[in-house]
Amino acid sequence: MKVVLDPVHGYIELDDLVQDLLSTPQMQRLRRIRQLGFSNLVYPGANHSRFEHSLGTMHLASTLTRSLDSIEDDKKTEIKAAALLHDIGHGPFSHVTENVIDKYTRRRHDDVKEILGKGEIREVLNKYGISPGNLVKHIKGETSLGQILSSEIDVDRMDYLVRDAHYTGVSFGVVDYNRLIKKMNFHEDRLVVDYGGLKAAESLLVSRFWMNTSVYYHHVTRISEAMCSRAVEYMIENNELDPFRLRYMDDIDLIASMRNATGYAGELSRLLDARKLYKRALYVGLADVGKAVLRHRDRIRRVEIEIAELAGVSPEYVLVDIPKTPEMLEMQAMIKTDHKMIPLNEASHFVSILREADMDNWRMGVYSPKEHCEAVGKAARDYFDVNKSLKQFKLSDL
Amino acid sequence: MKVVLDPVHGYIELDDLVQDLLSTPQMQRLRRIRQLGFSNLVYPGANHSRFEHSLGTMHLASTLTRSLDSIEDDKKTEIKAAALLHDIGHGPFSHVTENVIDKYTRRRHDDVKEILGKGEIREVLNKYGISPGNLVKHIKGETSLGQILSSEIDVDRMDYLVRDAHYTGVSFGVVDYNRLIKKMNFHEDRLVVDYGGLKAAESLLVSRFWMNTSVYYHHVTRISEAMCSRAVEYMIENNELDPFRLRYMDDIDLIASMRNATGYAGELSRLLDARKLYKRALYVGLADVGKAVLRHRDRIRRVEIEIAELAGVSPEYVLVDIPKTPEMLEMQAMIKTDHKMIPLNEASHFVSILREADMDNWRMGVYSPKEHCEAVGKAARDYFDVNKSLKQFKLSDL
Amino acid sequence: MKVVLDPVHGYIELDDLVQDLLSTPQMQRLRRIRQLGFSNLVYPGANHSRFEHSLGTMHLASTLTRSLDSIEDDKKTEIKAAALLHDIGHGPFSHVTENVIDKYTRRRHDDVKEILGKGEIREVLNKYGISPGNLVKHIKGETSLGQILSSEIDVDRMDYLVRDAHYTGVSFGVVDYNRLIKKMNFHEDRLVVDYGGLKAAESLLVSRFWMNTSVYYHHVTRISEAMCSRAVEYMIENNELDPFRLRYMDDIDLIASMRNATGYAGELSRLLDARKLYKRALYVGLADVGKAVLRHRDRIRRVEIEIAELAGVSPEYVLVDIPKTPEMLEMQAMIKTDHKMIPLNEASHFVSILREADMDNWRMGVYSPKEHCEAVGKAARDYFDVNKSLKQFKLSDL
Amino acid sequence: MKVVLDPVHGYIELDDLVQDLLSTPQMQRLRRIRQLGFSNLVYPGANHSRFEHSLGTMHLASTLTRSLDSIEDDKKTEIKAAALLHDIGHGPFSHVTENVIDKYTRRRHDDVKEILGKGEIREVLNKYGISPGNLVKHIKGETSLGQILSSEIDVDRMDYLVRDAHYTGVSFGVVDYNRLIKKMNFHEDRLVVDYGGLKAAESLLVSRFWMNTSVYYHHVTRISEAMCSRAVEYMIENNELDPFRLRYMDDIDLIASMRNATGYAGELSRLLDARKLYKRALYVGLADVGKAVLRHRDRIRRVEIEIAELAGVSPEYVLVDIPKTPEMLEMQAMIKTDHKMIPLNEASHFVSILREADMDNWRMGVYSPKEHCEAVGKAARDYFDVNKSLKQFKLSDL
Repeated sequence: MKVVLDPVHGYIELDDLVQDLLSTPQMQRLRRIRQLGFSNLVYPGANHSRFEHSLGTMHLASTLTRSLDSIEDDKKTEIKAAALLHDIGHGPFSHVTENVIDKYTRRRHDDVKEILGKGEIREVLNKYGISPGNLVKHIKGETSLGQILSSEIDVDRMDYLVRDAHYTGVSFGVVDYNRLIKKMNFHEDRLVVDYGGLKAAESLLVSRFWMNTSVYYHHVTRISEAMCSRAVEYMIENNELDPFRLRYMDDIDLIASMRNATGYAGELSRLLDARKLYKRALYVGLADVGKAVLRHRDRIRRVEIEIAELAGVSPEYVLVDIPKTPEMLEMQAMIKTDHKMIPLNEASHFVSILREADMDNWRMGVYSPKEHCEAVGKAARDYFDVNKSLKQFKLSDL
Repeated sequence: MKVVLDPVHGYIELDDLVQDLLSTPQMQRLRRIRQLGFSNLVYPGANHSRFEHSLGTMHLASTLTRSLDSIEDDKKTEIKAAALLHDIGHGPFSHVTENVIDKYTRRRHDDVKEILGKGEIREVLNKYGISPGNLVKHIKGETSLGQILSSEIDVDRMDYLVRDAHYTGVSFGVVDYNRLIKKMNFHEDRLVVDYGGLKAAESLLVSRFWMNTSVYYHHVTRISEAMCSRAVEYMIENNELDPFRLRYMDDIDLIASMRNATGYAGELSRLLDARKLYKRALYVGLADVGKAVLRHRDRIRRVEIEIAELAGVSPEYVLVDIPKTPEMLEMQAMIKTDHKMIPLNEASHFVSILREADMDNWRMGVYSPKEHCEAVGKAARDYFDVNKSLKQFKLSDL
Repeated sequence: MKVVLDPVHGYIELDDLVQDLLSTPQMQRLRRIRQLGFSNLVYPGANHSRFEHSLGTMHLASTLTRSLDSIEDDKKTEIKAAALLHDIGHGPFSHVTENVIDKYTRRRHDDVKEILGKGEIREVLNKYGISPGNLVKHIKGETSLGQILSSEIDVDRMDYLVRDAHYTGVSFGVVDYNRLIKKMNFHEDRLVVDYGGLKAAESLLVSRFWMNTSVYYHHVTRISEAMCSRAVEYMIENNELDPFRLRYMDDIDLIASMRNATGYAGELSRLLDARKLYKRALYVGLADVGKAVLRHRDRIRRVEIEIAELAGVSPEYVLVDIPKTPEMLEMQAMIKTDHKMIPLNEASHFVSILREADMDNWRMGVYSPKEHCEAVGKAARDYFDVNKSLKQFKLSDL
Repeated sequence: MKVVLDPVHGYIELDDLVQDLLSTPQMQRLRRIRQLGFSNLVYPGANHSRFEHSLGTMHLASTLTRSLDSIEDDKKTEIKAAALLHDIGHGPFSHVTENVIDKYTRRRHDDVKEILGKGEIREVLNKYGISPGNLVKHIKGETSLGQILSSEIDVDRMDYLVRDAHYTGVSFGVVDYNRLIKKMNFHEDRLVVDYGGLKAAESLLVSRFWMNTSVYYHHVTRISEAMCSRAVEYMIENNELDPFRLRYMDDIDLIASMRNATGYAGELSRLLDARKLYKRALYVGLADVGKAVLRHRDRIRRVEIEIAELAGVSPEYVLVDIPKTPEMLEMQAMIKTDHKMIPLNEASHFVSILREADMDNWRMGVYSPKEHCEAVGKAARDYFDVNKSLKQFKLSDL
């Protein structure tokens, strides 16, 4: 069997179906989509692609199903294909463009029906008698088997946690995934972890916590991504970019378009290329602003304009970033003992308290060019009624 | 400069002083003392010695002091020597014999005054003009510089955590010690961690938590060590072993003596050699027995006899193991920000909750040959008034 | 001091000079130049950039000079800057465009005089009183100190060997570079390796051999690079690309241009994007064609046209790839014993025979679309007078 | 299924048979036999045991047979048991006592018939219906399947090369054994490597070369082992040690006996404990003494006495060490292409020349206490007619 060498999992076997899917231009496009968006501006090694993550996820999914006798062979094949294709709907720089694509096209990255239903992928699926519709459901986690790909503890996050750790160099991103996979099983249509895999499941949560705090929520990454995302919005609104075409583009297409863009989008592109980034005018935790701040998530542009007015600067100079609160869905994974099923956070005291710690990672940010930071920061503090001195925020940032 | 290759730190440099100290029979003895006692009965790779741990600790201490300009060169030399010698007082199988040695000789493993003050070590120290008395104080952590070796966050535990992880294969024992060491400094005679090293300090705590749960508190290790420790007590009481000589013995001496021992000590030796171990008759957490159980720590032998009577078995068949509660001293390490000093557990919410989780690792055990487990378990549950079914304890054990 | 995390070397320290140089757009461009061109089509993880390699080379150069007391501080600073800037002259996809740029502009990647002498880099060098002219000489290896960056055994290749191994996943690319660096020294203006570093030097040669055979000479990489390089030539000759601008472009610029190109260049771009690559019509070693074949290196286009005529296909369908023979310059590195200096290949029998083995890695290739492979292969075998059956070539390829 | 964690291979599965075999005192004894004899005097981490190596070999043998459909299940079980038991015949410190045991008892370490045929191992084999006689043949490599355990490229050496590298810290001991195992197969009763595994097979040879040069032939190890081996001979000849009991002893038994020994054996024991080792009086390669020197291998004691007389010292002070020439049997492994079978050294030019390099690792040594080195060295040079100055030998030693 053909193999490919992966720095994370070693040799990955590619059967005919996988080779045929890999040969489609849609899968090849993922070679040119960075897995971690702009994280390479912080961690210079983080240049890995959705392509290798897709291979890794396929590899783990196959490893998991191989030992499950209850699953029929054609279903195992479906899961393998779904794992390989699960990120086919990602736009340039992965999550960076996800919200913009959603806003203008109402497509999330796991809405892959139209992608699987046409072109070379459809031909390959036809050839092997695989129903695109089934794959779509697996990818969305809507089937029992789909939990392997998308649920509280799935092979998708096992792969990306260890992979992102490998390429950033963050040594704590360890997940005992070999053991975890060995201890996963179906119990009445529910993907569960046997009690003997509890520590391995905990390791996944700890890894997630560390990667959140060190990588995924790093402020420099978030600033760059906010700048890119804003540039894309400007281009769409100026009719310089078709949002429906966007999700079929790769990183190269997007950056090339941005470099050609007029006005503020072009300016943001030049700043990103030169890594001349906005700075934090405000950067605070939930304790500082209260949960009420989350209601602004639907009216960010409005908020930015209002803060800009308060600060007396042009609205382009204010970027507001209010992330969702961390979910830690993994905690609801079911642990199976000899007698009963208990949620992970009840089986493990450690896990239950990790959630608290992870909430500390949440930050909202208001970003601005360095020269406007003071004015914008003051305005934003008033606007959000923050009762803390700027000094303290700096503390909470490494 | 001469170097030695260490699987954990790579090349370690050995200057003349270090080479001379390594050439003493006292240091060579540490080659034959297992770092982790009987942990190799659970983790077959855990055969590493106090000798390599001493080299590693010396290496980290030197790395730490090298960049601290405030420390004078002769003090750096003292710390290097103290680091290399800090475990010279360990008896066979390290912690396994520590309590027995203490009980019969009132010497702890860091009471190294008499060892440093005589023989070849004394000659070497003389040659380099190093005061044994100063080393003793450093090793006990009684000096300001001694905090490098013995304090809340010291190079001793940095080395043993990563080393024990390397040899057991437990992949979570990661400590970002290079960064941690870079961020450590003295502030008015207090060894502190700069704020930029907070995450690295957290990594040490997480590593400690994982190693506690996976390795240090593993019940099979604790059973073996209880068996060995009991055999040693019998031999001392039968005048087959001189407790004052014990701490100068190596693992080979002790096992050879045990194999020659008469009566029950000899029998325990044969059981250990063949890995025919006692089993858990009772194994419960603090929640099950209450903190009051700790008062029994000073009268273990009495408790064993009483349980044996209740169970109707010979007292040799009852081993009671009540560990100290975990300390997590690391949490009191001081973190230095631009403005003030704060204890680690205040600077890091994550650390503060790790303590809770670590308390869950505490277990008391009553061990007995398999054939007496039911009777002894029942008696012990009555004796300690445990209101739980045995089923539940099994759950908490991986 | 500021640090950046590198997956290969861990934390790398960035002093003010380095930070200022990194902030220039010229250095930022290297983030978008793949270190290994199209190797990621074979090794999916090989997406790393010249930027991180430059950081790594700077790190190793600093480590090497730190312990050399004979070098003055300002010279150490020069070497640090030169190490960071040594690849600033690379065009898109590194070596892929090197020959084309040379052909049309007479600039090699180490001709960096004009790049260092203008713009933001010049300003930074001015600020720190560093002479661009000195850096140019260091980078070309024309000074004594420049041997650190460019000589038989230099930090440039130490970094790229281990880095390329890390990202491809090829586990044999091990170099004992920590030891090698410790054992390097200047002896009368010659950078030499002390005898104690002989094994470490050997490890570099073995690593080079493995990386040659597994990665650098992989036929799929060479085919892709030949296709890209040819597309670039077409674009230059069609006036769709300015060769003088080319070396200032990044991978994104080049791919975007290729996608917009007309004619055959555009077609090659689409084939590369979809990884529909030419195949090997002929693939033979030096023993099969004789050294005389090397004389064709200067008239490749002519050769291609002649083979195409013989095969009766359009000249676009024939790509001829005749690499230089491997040099193994490392073998001339000087080893210093107590008494004399001897070249590495005399000090080590093992090294001397590695050269023979490395010659086996040399292959010339003639590539063509699959449907023309038979005709082109036959023509090429006649043209080059190859007396071997095609079967045998397949053997020599993994 | 029960698992055990191995630092080299990760989780190793233990089925009922394996668990039962591991529970025998004969297998438990291997926990107390160092894999690398006295190598820990050079590489402090090299304390690993035959027990873990046996587990690792069993793991690789199972992995190899799992995918071979042509082998029946009961034969797979036999190979698994044989792999686990293959080193059961090793005496204390593995190879250190092998020659002495052979000399006095005519038993080699793979003469395991009498060990498998009695006691608890026999009972376990009976229980599972396994014939001890078949295991003996597999272990000696006398059956077709036995080639998995003992042939040119077997799982035994795959395991020990990577394991010894892990514990010594020698980073070059890389073997691509996962790929190699995947590419191994039976072809008409011959265990062969498919052509696609050629590079992986080469990696094993390179690893062997490096481990020979760095570890297995290290002079300090060889000196210590010669001292131990000689002490054992003295004890046997003084009737202080029964050679037939020796191979059932563990390291502890032997060291304890040596410490109690009278005369020169006791003295050697004290020197070994304190690492006060003999030095090299003579240390030369084959080129210096000629192949004729090998004829002395059968009369070492005679040679020592004659050299001692020449030097005017007591015969105890002369240890002569003439190793066998390296065999590199691996080169005869068969590589299977589509068409034919070729020996590894013909399939790979690289491998054929490695043999030459490995011959360079051969050294004969004459060892003596430091104070007699000059006299003994001079005498030995005369005796062996060595035409080289001592200076040159020093060169060849790292």
